[in-house]
Amino acid sequence: MEPQVYGLSYAGSFVSLDAAMADDLSVVNSARVSFGKRRDFLNDADKGLINFLLRERHGTPFEHNSFRFHVRCPIFVAREWFRHRIGSFNEFSGRYSEMPSEAYLPPETHWRTQTGKPGAYTFEPVEPEVAAEAQQILAEAYDAAFTAYAKLGELGIAKELARLAIPVATYTEFYWTVNARALMNFLSLRTHDAAQREIRELALEVEKSFAEKMPITYAAWVANDKVAP
Amino acid sequence: MEPQVYGLSYAGSFVSLDAAMADDLSVVNSARVSFGKRRDFLNDADKGLINFLLRERHGTPFEHNSFRFHVRCPIFVAREWFRHRIGSFNEFSGRYSEMPSEAYLPPETHWRTQTGKPGAYTFEPVEPEVAAEAQQILAEAYDAAFTAYAKLGELGIAKELARLAIPVATYTEFYWTVNARALMNFLSLRTHDAAQREIRELALEVEKSFAEKMPITYAAWVANDKVAP
Amino acid sequence: MEPQVYGLSYAGSFVSLDAAMADDLSVVNSARVSFGKRRDFLNDADKGLINFLLRERHGTPFEHNSFRFHVRCPIFVAREWFRHRIGSFNEFSGRYSEMPSEAYLPPETHWRTQTGKPGAYTFEPVEPEVAAEAQQILAEAYDAAFTAYAKLGELGIAKELARLAIPVATYTEFYWTVNARALMNFLSLRTHDAAQREIRELALEVEKSFAEKMPITYAAWVANDKVAP
Amino acid sequence: MEPQVYGLSYAGSFVSLDAAMADDLSVVNSARVSFGKRRDFLNDADKGLINFLLRERHGTPFEHNSFRFHVRCPIFVAREWFRHRIGSFNEFSGRYSEMPSEAYLPPETHWRTQTGKPGAYTFEPVEPEVAAEAQQILAEAYDAAFTAYAKLGELGIAKELARLAIPVATYTEFYWTVNARALMNFLSLRTHDAAQREIRELALEVEKSFAEKMPITYAAWVANDKVAP
Repeated sequence: MEPQVYGLSYAGSFVSLDAAMADDLSVVNSARVSFGKRRDFLNDADKGLINFLLRERHGTPFEHNSFRFHVRCPIFVAREWFRHRIGSFNEFSGRYSEMPSEAYLPPETHWRTQTGKPGAYTFEPVEPEVAAEAQQILAEAYDAAFTAYAKLGELGIAKELARLAIPVATYTEFYWTVNARALMNFLSLRTHDAAQREIRELALEVEKSFAEKMPITYAAWVANDKVAP
Repeated sequence: MEPQVYGLSYAGSFVSLDAAMADDLSVVNSARVSFGKRRDFLNDADKGLINFLLRERHGTPFEHNSFRFHVRCPIFVAREWFRHRIGSFNEFSGRYSEMPSEAYLPPETHWRTQTGKPGAYTFEPVEPEVAAEAQQILAEAYDAAFTAYAKLGELGIAKELARLAIPVATYTEFYWTVNARALMNFLSLRTHDAAQREIRELALEVEKSFAEKMPITYAAWVANDKVAP
Repeated sequence: MEPQVYGLSYAGSFVSLDAAMADDLSVVNSARVSFGKRRDFLNDADKGLINFLLRERHGTPFEHNSFRFHVRCPIFVAREWFRHRIGSFNEFSGRYSEMPSEAYLPPETHWRTQTGKPGAYTFEPVEPEVAAEAQQILAEAYDAAFTAYAKLGELGIAKELARLAIPVATYTEFYWTVNARALMNFLSLRTHDAAQREIRELALEVEKSFAEKMPITYAAWVANDKVAP
Repeated sequence: MEPQVYGLSYAGSFVSLDAAMADDLSVVNSARVSFGKRRDFLNDADKGLINFLLRERHGTPFEHNSFRFHVRCPIFVAREWFRHRIGSFNEFSGRYSEMPSEAYLPPETHWRTQTGKPGAYTFEPVEPEVAAEAQQILAEAYDAAFTAYAKLGELGIAKELARLAIPVATYTEFYWTVNARALMNFLSLRTHDAAQREIRELALEVEKSFAEKMPITYAAWVANDKVAP
């Protein structure tokens, strides 16, 4: 994989806005087409309209835009991402290319224990010495896995089979193209406290791009408790 | 409805490209992410890749782009358009606004008769005097319909009920946002000889925008008999 | 069109459940697969689970089922129906077949006037004599339209063009296949007070089938203010 | 995970048809609704219609049905499966439940080497002693990974983090609900020679259910070179 110099990064992960066709005006114009109206600039009344649309969950006017992200993250994070079906994905292939021998190792501050019920867990950091021990256990497991991956490759085993050894924390990368309506749905779920921290931190990077490109829509969504329309 | 001065028009119909995030490079980069590769400019080898993707019907790399069109057309044309579910629509509302008292009247050259079986009709132009008579019949029917619509309005009947009188040829307008993969599917069906002429003429306008924004993809799609990947 | 003897009807409209693969157990099993659990019968705890899923808007477990409806309704109602993209449609074709010369004429009790703003209209019935006059105006408009349609046919004009004369209230029919998650979204919008009465009455028929096949899910959805998950 | 006694199995993998609402008649009726026709039994002419629809790629009539499968397979296979967006999924959660310490170990006959270009690989079996060595390398890697997973659990690390150690060959399970049109697309790609053997073997089980429930559609699809409509 070529070095990535653009965008925001989180350890081996990054989220980079690759392209966008997104502004608040498109929301207003696609809503006002109901009345056969169109304008070239936003005015103050339009903010109220955007708020109204979000609050009343009229979702379709938020679909006439597009964000393309380039993302690198561990496979277990990508798996949650790809559950979002309204959007487009193309990903690194472990059948076609050698996987990077690089997996996400949580920094010491991220090791946590859980209590409570599924969907409503509470997470608490573990003691530093526990975190250190956990890191070492995981690092050794990664080492064993990538060593096996390399050995299978040396034996001439097809890449698609050799990869069976690699951990779900191995990094992958993909392009993701999505409209603001689906994006808000993604953000509602993946920036939520109940989301796994590893995807939440990347979703917060996605959120920044959304806020920057569609500030009025973003503010209205926040004011509406981040419920997707 | 406000006058529309931009874009291409077909009598009362028009197709106008409102915005686009579309280029051939995005196809190549989203395909090459399989190999962890990315580049900033297209080269000659990339044309071969785009051809390969189209021929082998690898469709997903053609999804990382977006076209937003503003369209005005008769309702019976819009109905065919809205059957395309992969894409976003917002339309003029006859519940919220008064419908334009304007319907599509085929020009003399467009009146035709059909022979053959459904899905494989052959259309032949009718004699000029038949076309003239047909035009008059239709114009009178429109007049009766819009007169009824106006009268119902004058009686204080709700717009959503008064509209029951209007013909399916009445003009409507909408925004349509779609990616190139779904666009190629639309164009395959709607620029085809078997498509109704009234949607085909508008689809050909859509095709021009596609050809302009993604010329290499367009050429590959044409070379591939316009089969959508 | 052949006479339809099965199902519920509303004047010329009807909604008929054609087939279903739908029960509450599938919701529970697709949710419990998160834990690798499966059971063959519902128990009381499962009701709580279904309530929880609906309240917390975990929508995917409600997708593992399918309803197929056969619907006949006016075109302007079908147009609202077809806006629901998560689902499958096949419809009568005015290009392939002669349209029925039959359009929806609101009964006297249904004629109404509107006040208020778009999206929040209040409708009041009009006086009986106004309703009677409106009915006559509309009936005459229909008569003119279908007479024109017949005349164009007699002139040998292709069906796809002759139909331009017909009103948006002309009856059409279609099959619609949909899962419970998309169905709840449809019902939330189309049984709502803000929906047009003509689609609301048919949506209420759809709702009966849903309630019958998935009674626990239905009860939970009602208890949750009919918000779709 | 509870023992699964029903359905077909492939080592630790299985595909089990959980429910279906699927027959060839629904294809015919949803196509014939274009003409306002409906029948209660298939006749010989209908076979020709189904062939015609497939050949001409009229896909929508194949959507009015539903198959629900219960699948167990390795994560790397599930990842390919979940790329198919037209359909519904619910999966085992490694955040909520302890993952099975069980991963797919290819039998001796399955170890292979690859030659050729991506998308057109040729695979050849490796020598038995190479296969045996590969098996041992992989088995040891699995052992190291699941040992680390268990140790992290014993340290009190949250399941969602402990799982980082496990390999992509670990078994998962899910429900998948899909219509015949999307199913044919899945089968075209995943029973193809170019598909990875591990998903192909499971896709062939899926194909059997399709052939059984919709034999005429299946035969037409095979006659049409398994191109999805």
